[in-house]
Amino acid sequence: MISPINYCPQCSQPVRQGIPEGDDRPRHICDACGSIHYQNPKVIAGCIPVFGERVLLCKRAIEPRLGYWTLPAGFMELGETLAEAARREAREEANVEVELEALYTLFSLPHISQVYAFFRGRMRAELFSAGEESLEVRLFHEDEIPWDELAFETVRRALRLFFEDRHGGNFTFRTEDIGPELNRRPRPA
Amino acid sequence: MISPINYCPQCSQPVRQGIPEGDDRPRHICDACGSIHYQNPKVIAGCIPVFGERVLLCKRAIEPRLGYWTLPAGFMELGETLAEAARREAREEANVEVELEALYTLFSLPHISQVYAFFRGRMRAELFSAGEESLEVRLFHEDEIPWDELAFETVRRALRLFFEDRHGGNFTFRTEDIGPELNRRPRPA
Repeated sequence: MISPINYCPQCSQPVRQGIPEGDDRPRHICDACGSIHYQNPKVIAGCIPVFGERVLLCKRAIEPRLGYWTLPAGFMELGETLAEAARREAREEANVEVELEALYTLFSLPHISQVYAFFRGRMRAELFSAGEESLEVRLFHEDEIPWDELAFETVRRALRLFFEDRHGGNFTFRTEDIGPELNRRPRPA
Repeated sequence: MISPINYCPQCSQPVRQGIPEGDDRPRHICDACGSIHYQNPKVIAGCIPVFGERVLLCKRAIEPRLGYWTLPAGFMELGETLAEAARREAREEANVEVELEALYTLFSLPHISQVYAFFRGRMRAELFSAGEESLEVRLFHEDEIPWDELAFETVRRALRLFFEDRHGGNFTFRTEDIGPELNRRPRPA
């Protein structure tokens, strides 16, 4: 989500929207101190934790999409690599240590200005539990995946590709663009 | 570069640094309006524009690294896909239309909180010129690449991988972490 900028974060004076010289799109400009405040897409990093044949999913304890199932993933923080962010999110959401294999998917979601990266990950042990942002964490066989109760289109798409590639016996890195077409279903009971 | 936040962009009151409840790292918190202001890594998208055997580079007309050669690349904007951002940057910096092939490299630069994506790209015609941010734009054969006058380690690394893979006859998607080890050389004459 992109936060509103009403006042200059540097000097506190009101900002205006305008196109700076040499630029081609509106920015938040502070005429008092001359600073320009850019807003850019955010990166979400996560992984598909795999233990044997099964995949680990987390039931969300927070909005958005509370009660829906997701892969462990979250906003990349300052000072992190993509892999560090993905491992941290797995720890936070599922108390699980994941050994990351290759980066597997990279999705652009222009309608919400996000870039979404999922690694494939291996769990060394069947050790996990619900972190603070999860109601429940569970391993799922392919035929148990709650396709109608997945939190995000990115998660659905990453899992679809994962099982397709696993059947084919070969994992290939994928980049895709994902639009706003996900049907919002009623919250599961 | 990460901009300082001294005042709340929503309500103009001074912010403090603190760890919000349920969080694990310091954020900018506004006690007046209750908002929390997150800062996250930025994405840079670009491409390796290829025409026949040659690769297109731009000599930077702006800081940082004014006078050094770079691949066309820049900050991803709100509402864009990675590919749209890469094509736009090629247009802006080199007035060139690039048909993007696969995403080729994805670098994490944790010391400057950036994620850097380069596509491989094909130029349909030898049509290009210096955009506002470039002093000069030129096609280079491999043995002409100004290795000592490249602007960024990401560019050097992407080009090294590109020529290695081209010699090998097969391009493979690469993710790497890049540290702050680039030697800062004096500006070229």
